[in-house]
Amino acid sequence: MSGTIDSKTVENLVLNECCSMPHTHFTAVPLGKSSRLLNHGPTVLVSAQHAGTRNVMAAAWACVLDYGESTKVTVVLDKSTFTRGLVEASGYFALQLPTKAMAKLTYALGSESANHVANKLEKLGAKTFAAPDFDLPLVDGCVAWLACKLMPEPHNQQTYDLFIGEVVGAWADERVFRDGHWNFDDAPDELRTIHHVAGGHFFVTGDVVSG
Amino acid sequence: MSGTIDSKTVENLVLNECCSMPHTHFTAVPLGKSSRLLNHGPTVLVSAQHAGTRNVMAAAWACVLDYGESTKVTVVLDKSTFTRGLVEASGYFALQLPTKAMAKLTYALGSESANHVANKLEKLGAKTFAAPDFDLPLVDGCVAWLACKLMPEPHNQQTYDLFIGEVVGAWADERVFRDGHWNFDDAPDELRTIHHVAGGHFFVTGDVVSG
Repeated sequence: MSGTIDSKTVENLVLNECCSMPHTHFTAVPLGKSSRLLNHGPTVLVSAQHAGTRNVMAAAWACVLDYGESTKVTVVLDKSTFTRGLVEASGYFALQLPTKAMAKLTYALGSESANHVANKLEKLGAKTFAAPDFDLPLVDGCVAWLACKLMPEPHNQQTYDLFIGEVVGAWADERVFRDGHWNFDDAPDELRTIHHVAGGHFFVTGDVVSG
Repeated sequence: MSGTIDSKTVENLVLNECCSMPHTHFTAVPLGKSSRLLNHGPTVLVSAQHAGTRNVMAAAWACVLDYGESTKVTVVLDKSTFTRGLVEASGYFALQLPTKAMAKLTYALGSESANHVANKLEKLGAKTFAAPDFDLPLVDGCVAWLACKLMPEPHNQQTYDLFIGEVVGAWADERVFRDGHWNFDDAPDELRTIHHVAGGHFFVTGDVVSG
């Protein structure tokens, strides 16, 4: 991969064979507003690809680190995960927000490892599509997607399994996020984001209260 | 402060003058279950004290970093915050989960800085009580509290404003968290935790969905 145009083109061709294209409900979010996609602490799906291999895992431990034009995120990627290797090799990862309708898929993506399950994504029914401009597979059905460039920090990665990324692209389902604001009230309840607690139990993002 | 018994005793005496004691709905949580207090990504209040001075700020960017007996957390503390100096000087901080009823207070604690507002906590009506066994002020009315020992990482702190702490004590309001599990359904709605998005607007932790 390594970010070259040639390898990007080849990989996209390979990946597109298994991807749903074109993707609807996929609207660009200005980078300066992208932290708002994660501020409320939802569980995310982490995806990456390298040398024609892609994977998706779930992570409850993802967080904003900085906002504005220099928006950064953290995510914890255990050494046992297959996705971690793809992130380290490619230098890119995507964080995306699954919905209430995807709770079962999210838990399965976080429980089953591609290290032990052949064709994990196909087996679990997770479909991806190619991110515009980046060598990243994005998960179908999510309501927000952040393309992130790894900021290598070997000490953090080795000691804490902590990865830092700079947000280089962001998109959202305009039915629930538009003009820089979430609005779940006017959309189907199934599109609400989710927050994992333990053992496959999630809290759905609830009503708004203003301070 | 510096963790000595003598200074701890003196500080607690000073602090207890302004604290609500004894505290009810405050039940110890085993450290091995403490990550479950934060897994769902709620906004937290961050508190610390040093040399007789205490403060509380709000942070949406706090996250679990590791779980089990070695539970660790991350929190972003901007260089402009007064609380950051107390954390650096004392080596300890507390993360605690405010409720729906505390949304206005939470936003005010995150918007007003003790660098510019005299007697910030008294002005805003934030009451604290002394943590058992630790030199930490805990905020009254929260539903979970994590006492954390700073794991100094100067590069992270300076470059990213990122602080890592090991959880050394944990407590929760047993009306909403008991036996290692959250249960908001049987408690007053005002006790639900909150997730800040932007500008003082929070999502309340919603219903459960199982994957």
